[in-house]
Amino acid sequence: MNNTFTTYQNLIEKEIGNIAFGGGPIELYEPLSYMMHLGGKRFRPVLVLMAHELFGGNKPEDAIYPAIGMEVFHNFTLIHDDIMDNALLRRGKPTVHTKWGQTVAILSGDVMLVKAYHFISMVRPEILPEVLQLFNETACRVCEGQQLDMNFEQKADVSIDEYVGMIGLKTAELLAGCLKMGAIIANAPMEEADRLYDFGYLLGTAFQVQDDLLDAFGNADTFGKNIGGDILANKKTWLTLKSKELAGTKDAAELDILYSSQLLPAEEKIARVMEIYHRAGVKKLTEEARDGFYHQALECLEAINLPEDKKQPLKRLAGELIVRVK
Amino acid sequence: MNNTFTTYQNLIEKEIGNIAFGGGPIELYEPLSYMMHLGGKRFRPVLVLMAHELFGGNKPEDAIYPAIGMEVFHNFTLIHDDIMDNALLRRGKPTVHTKWGQTVAILSGDVMLVKAYHFISMVRPEILPEVLQLFNETACRVCEGQQLDMNFEQKADVSIDEYVGMIGLKTAELLAGCLKMGAIIANAPMEEADRLYDFGYLLGTAFQVQDDLLDAFGNADTFGKNIGGDILANKKTWLTLKSKELAGTKDAAELDILYSSQLLPAEEKIARVMEIYHRAGVKKLTEEARDGFYHQALECLEAINLPEDKKQPLKRLAGELIVRVK
Repeated sequence: MNNTFTTYQNLIEKEIGNIAFGGGPIELYEPLSYMMHLGGKRFRPVLVLMAHELFGGNKPEDAIYPAIGMEVFHNFTLIHDDIMDNALLRRGKPTVHTKWGQTVAILSGDVMLVKAYHFISMVRPEILPEVLQLFNETACRVCEGQQLDMNFEQKADVSIDEYVGMIGLKTAELLAGCLKMGAIIANAPMEEADRLYDFGYLLGTAFQVQDDLLDAFGNADTFGKNIGGDILANKKTWLTLKSKELAGTKDAAELDILYSSQLLPAEEKIARVMEIYHRAGVKKLTEEARDGFYHQALECLEAINLPEDKKQPLKRLAGELIVRVK
Repeated sequence: MNNTFTTYQNLIEKEIGNIAFGGGPIELYEPLSYMMHLGGKRFRPVLVLMAHELFGGNKPEDAIYPAIGMEVFHNFTLIHDDIMDNALLRRGKPTVHTKWGQTVAILSGDVMLVKAYHFISMVRPEILPEVLQLFNETACRVCEGQQLDMNFEQKADVSIDEYVGMIGLKTAELLAGCLKMGAIIANAPMEEADRLYDFGYLLGTAFQVQDDLLDAFGNADTFGKNIGGDILANKKTWLTLKSKELAGTKDAAELDILYSSQLLPAEEKIARVMEIYHRAGVKKLTEEARDGFYHQALECLEAINLPEDKKQPLKRLAGELIVRVK
């Protein structure tokens, strides 16, 4: 990652280390600290600070608490999503509901959402209504995306457009919201803040498509997850949906069978789905789709009326995200 | 209930009927409307409006959306509490997790908390920071109270003081917060808003002690719940804790045995616990405790520097709550 990113990342990490998230009862607040210290790239709060700097915000302390609020919100969604997905591990450690039970996971997630609002509200009073409105809308959309994601598990026919809409809500909205928040805090003109939002939304979409690609075609050592995890979880991704669209009747039917099979050995299941991906030529098509979103994102960034050198850190970050191998 | 109460109750009911809580996906928003239309006394939002009027707020529309926000918040807590308590029914209807499953109940509860913030933020910008701070603190405390309530289920020795602290957080804080919110919206001096908060906190405590009493000594037809519900749920209430404190060694031991028994027929269990309550003379003592909180509450109301007739509706409401038979 580029210098601006790592500088802000370190700043946020340090500040998170200084925060006491709550007093007692310990059962309620311990999972909150646990989640906030599990690590992660701090991608969302860094975006708040980078957007803030882009529009001339030269004191990161003006934006750091709302930035951390976005990270707290993100971690709240992880706690509750992990319950819904029955996930055992998060960043290689036990999930909150695995470690403390479901009841604690629900309630400490709830209080975490309240704490997110607490930090996000730490902005100048004159921009508070705007920041809150942005966050309320963002938070609703993230919940809507999670609901759609769960609906799609049961839905036989999901179109690529529906899928793009879902990952937009579930993943891209929060990245876009972080960028717009930083812009608002730096008093950016609303039109420019919206362009940056669009940049984030499209970049977030490209990022998720890239994630789908890496799950099937990545290198397990650098990706940090096992290859084929989405396939084993019967997760409909860009790859499966596009393959089904393009494959002949026989391959499409086999994909359905493979995705409803509970009995197939993991390696065989992954291998057979990958064969269909290869026959459909879906890798190249998915890379093209990803690059399409990525280039649209860059166009939004270019349309912002600021000197090129100011935009360099975000542009570099976008490039790093898309060529990332992990 | 008195006129002021029912007038505001009708106003709130009408406004809730007009609100569309969200678009799609329907799985996410349907439970929210369902909960908001299950009925209930609308006690919390009415308190916001009564406090607002007390301090000269003569346009209820200035406070109605934050008032509804408090009702939305209350209903969010009910959805998540019902999951944690494995409750099948709420106001005689299936709970959200029973009707739509746990995953939907977690997620629609989450979006409901976001919607609560949305409505609560609909105040004049200059008081928004103060209103939000009040709500953030209130919401954290309600979560803390719920956590303590669950901790107490596992805890062998809960003192009366600990119990009063827990019901204060879980129940009284929200009533107090509603009153203070109405006061803030009406520009009440902070000292007076705090007195009204104290009134609400003590009244809420009296109200919960009264609820404990009614569960054992109420009339099933007018109370609207089955008598002895707390006993069957092994719920430690004021009555059990005080009985254990006062009873001889033998009765205290029997209470422990009865509360850990899963096998006793319901009627016998209730009858045997009630006998201990009678022997300990706990009914009268609990009534005295309730009256103590109630009178302290009235003193706080009296200390507010406003003409007596302005305070009459809240004073009457307090009386109605405490002599209530249901």
